Amino acid sequence: MALSATNSPARCLVCRACGQEYPLIAQHACFECFGPLEVGYDQAALNKVTREQIEAGPQNIWRYAPLLPAGQDPASRVTLDPGLTPLIRADRLAAELGMTGTLWVKDDSANPTHSFKDRVVSVALTAAKELGFTRFACASTGNLANSVAAHAARAGVPSIVFIPSDLEQGKIITTAVYGGELVAIEGSYDDVNRLCGELTETDAFEDTAFVNVNVRPYYAEGSKTLGYEVAEQLGWRLPAQVVAPMASGELLTKIDKAFEELVEIGLVAESSWKVFGAQSKGCDPIATALRDGKDEITPVKPTGIAKSLNIGDPAAGPFALESVRRTGGWMDSVTDDEIRDGIELLARTTGVFAETAGGVTVAVLKKLVESGRLDPTAETVVYNTGEGLKTLDAVADRVGPTHRVKPSLRAAREAGLL
Amino acid sequence: MALSATNSPARCLVCRACGQEYPLIAQHACFECFGPLEVGYDQAALNKVTREQIEAGPQNIWRYAPLLPAGQDPASRVTLDPGLTPLIRADRLAAELGMTGTLWVKDDSANPTHSFKDRVVSVALTAAKELGFTRFACASTGNLANSVAAHAARAGVPSIVFIPSDLEQGKIITTAVYGGELVAIEGSYDDVNRLCGELTETDAFEDTAFVNVNVRPYYAEGSKTLGYEVAEQLGWRLPAQVVAPMASGELLTKIDKAFEELVEIGLVAESSWKVFGAQSKGCDPIATALRDGKDEITPVKPTGIAKSLNIGDPAAGPFALESVRRTGGWMDSVTDDEIRDGIELLARTTGVFAETAGGVTVAVLKKLVESGRLDPTAETVVYNTGEGLKTLDAVADRVGPTHRVKPSLRAAREAGLL
Ligand SMILES: Cc1ncc(COP(=O)(O)O)c(C=O)c1O
Ligand SMILES: Cc1ncc(COP(=O)(O)O)c(C=O)c1O
Ligand SMILES: [Zn+2]
Ligand SMILES: [Zn+2]
Repeated sequence: MALSATNSPARCLVCRACGQEYPLIAQHACFECFGPLEVGYDQAALNKVTREQIEAGPQNIWRYAPLLPAGQDPASRVTLDPGLTPLIRADRLAAELGMTGTLWVKDDSANPTHSFKDRVVSVALTAAKELGFTRFACASTGNLANSVAAHAARAGVPSIVFIPSDLEQGKIITTAVYGGELVAIEGSYDDVNRLCGELTETDAFEDTAFVNVNVRPYYAEGSKTLGYEVAEQLGWRLPAQVVAPMASGELLTKIDKAFEELVEIGLVAESSWKVFGAQSKGCDPIATALRDGKDEITPVKPTGIAKSLNIGDPAAGPFALESVRRTGGWMDSVTDDEIRDGIELLARTTGVFAETAGGVTVAVLKKLVESGRLDPTAETVVYNTGEGLKTLDAVADRVGPTHRVKPSLRAAREAGLL
Repeated sequence: MALSATNSPARCLVCRACGQEYPLIAQHACFECFGPLEVGYDQAALNKVTREQIEAGPQNIWRYAPLLPAGQDPASRVTLDPGLTPLIRADRLAAELGMTGTLWVKDDSANPTHSFKDRVVSVALTAAKELGFTRFACASTGNLANSVAAHAARAGVPSIVFIPSDLEQGKIITTAVYGGELVAIEGSYDDVNRLCGELTETDAFEDTAFVNVNVRPYYAEGSKTLGYEVAEQLGWRLPAQVVAPMASGELLTKIDKAFEELVEIGLVAESSWKVFGAQSKGCDPIATALRDGKDEITPVKPTGIAKSLNIGDPAAGPFALESVRRTGGWMDSVTDDEIRDGIELLARTTGVFAETAGGVTVAVLKKLVESGRLDPTAETVVYNTGEGLKTLDAVADRVGPTHRVKPSLRAAREAGLL
């Protein structure tokens, strides 16, 4: 079955490697060359999209429906209505980092399940429903699990979610509470992902849409909204620099793609932008390839506290490399302690409490300023893609009450509060 | 010093007990009778407010600035821009509860620090700044602590937050991470509150605004936005029934007040509504007074898992009683296990993961339907005021992975997944 949403600008799936085109089916790899498939659009349809049309839309990702493969009809959506998350001016963070250009935090922890994954899941499941799937699934490093389970609960559709068994408690409970099936796999995310790929080939999973496996091309498009929103929130123009975290590398790639599309369609004036990628030292195969000047990514066995970014064999890694190289950006990676510092720095200066992935991104921003790779005088957007409440252990040993006293004025005085 | 915000419709403070009026100062109790003070408005100014004016405002509580005591000038705001949280149609929850009237969940976990407290803190601190205070403080059952610390961090103002030392880890870390002072008091919330009242009288705290003590009248007004938003989101009309959690009882009282104001100003058509209050069995002094037909609240020593609602001596309890009696509503309370069931029920049917306070409210809704106190055929709004990630322990023993398997098709088959 192929997607045929009314008013969808999507035209086909196209192989990112060999260019072969396919109808809008549930398939993520090219039958010819095994290259990854992505959604191809009817350029004439995209060209017709106007700022006014978008601005008249709802206060969530669906205002960009004319630029997405599915969900044009509100009744067709499987969604928690994510998006239009705050773009926060971060003058105090900029000052601490010695940046004189305007610094913005795009705070995607404000989404319904508190990560940017609600964007990709809403688009993927809306496509999945239309493709006839009756069960929703994913392979997840945590946030995707939360989002798929919550979307399925809202829609009243069965779900089955696969996670590495060593995930943070905050992400396990926040998936399980929605009541779907939750399968803990004794292995890494890459093991989970491989197993899910195999499961899609079985009869028992014929009716099951794995958001980031068999309907991945639709899923990936959801991340474009993180680019669109920043441009619209800046008054329809592009920032000079963006810093984004990378696991599979898809998010970063799609922010870049969104900027390209906006220029091409004429929704923003042409201007140059640089894309910067952030990983943790415990799992930095993409940043390593960039540093070593390689085109191929050497898979790693992930370690460290930034579990949501722990993809050792990143599917979109080569495309992330391409984005960063083409735009003149850079990538870097940080230690677990730098991640913790990043979380605290962001919280203390902006009031935004990020999960480890946000700590990675802020810490890499700091490093990029220090190394001179990022221009501290140019306007910069740093993406916080997840919520601190999901990874409390990261900072639990570092922060706590500054005083502990009995409930009396005398005790308060003795503790130095008066 | 008194508040003198340009364009503020606030005119005075007025005693809820004896009617005595005062200028807009930092004071919460009547000098004559010790009754609680609330903000009095210039009715002519309120009457001029139009739907169009509100709809043209920002996508947050500040669209209602013409109905609030402070924050009319955007530059004057101390805020994380909370509000305009989703009003979610909950057909599947309604069906499980046997309700045939439309049921809505007002999901205030979508606020910046994931509780409705961001609303009251934004209004209180905006007033506090204008009143000349240079340090922000509160006595908190948890959520208020998160919100005050985050607001202070964003604004770059020092903060000092007082909590009972036995709070959930999720609420302690999520306060401490913002870097302000955090004082854990070895006692109950009521002890903390009493101490904070004493501290406001000391020289060392002269510069300190306690959002729910010395600037409480401004703080309380922030909760009105939970009433305004529901009315606006329903297309400028009132729901027939609302169910809200109660700690001090302020929130419920102010939702009712907001509905009254909207009718009086002419922003909604006159219609009748009923207000229902929810508490936990571990702390239900207001519900007990209602059941026993009393006007006075007998303080209790709180116990149980709904810590954010654990106020044993609720300041606005008599006003909550008055709202419920006048509108023909009711109150009830639920056990810890019913709270856990409520959290799971809401998650499973709506995709919203609530903290214990939300579990209380959903469980009380269920009980009110079963007892016939609430009309299952009338339109109803249930308020979820907090986030499940902050109280994971409540459900940690109940939910988890449904399967645990090795990463192979064979293991998946043996586990019954194929
Ligand atoms: C919080 C967070 N940020 C960023 C990412 C990276 O996404 P991508 O795999 O598209 O690179 C993830 C992936 O799980 C995530 O959970
Ligand atoms: C999540 C939550 N809901 C409801 C309330 C009750 O608020 P009030 O004291 O206004 O009754 C609180 C108070 O702390 C709270 O934290
Ligand atoms: Zn190909
Ligand atoms: Zn009085």
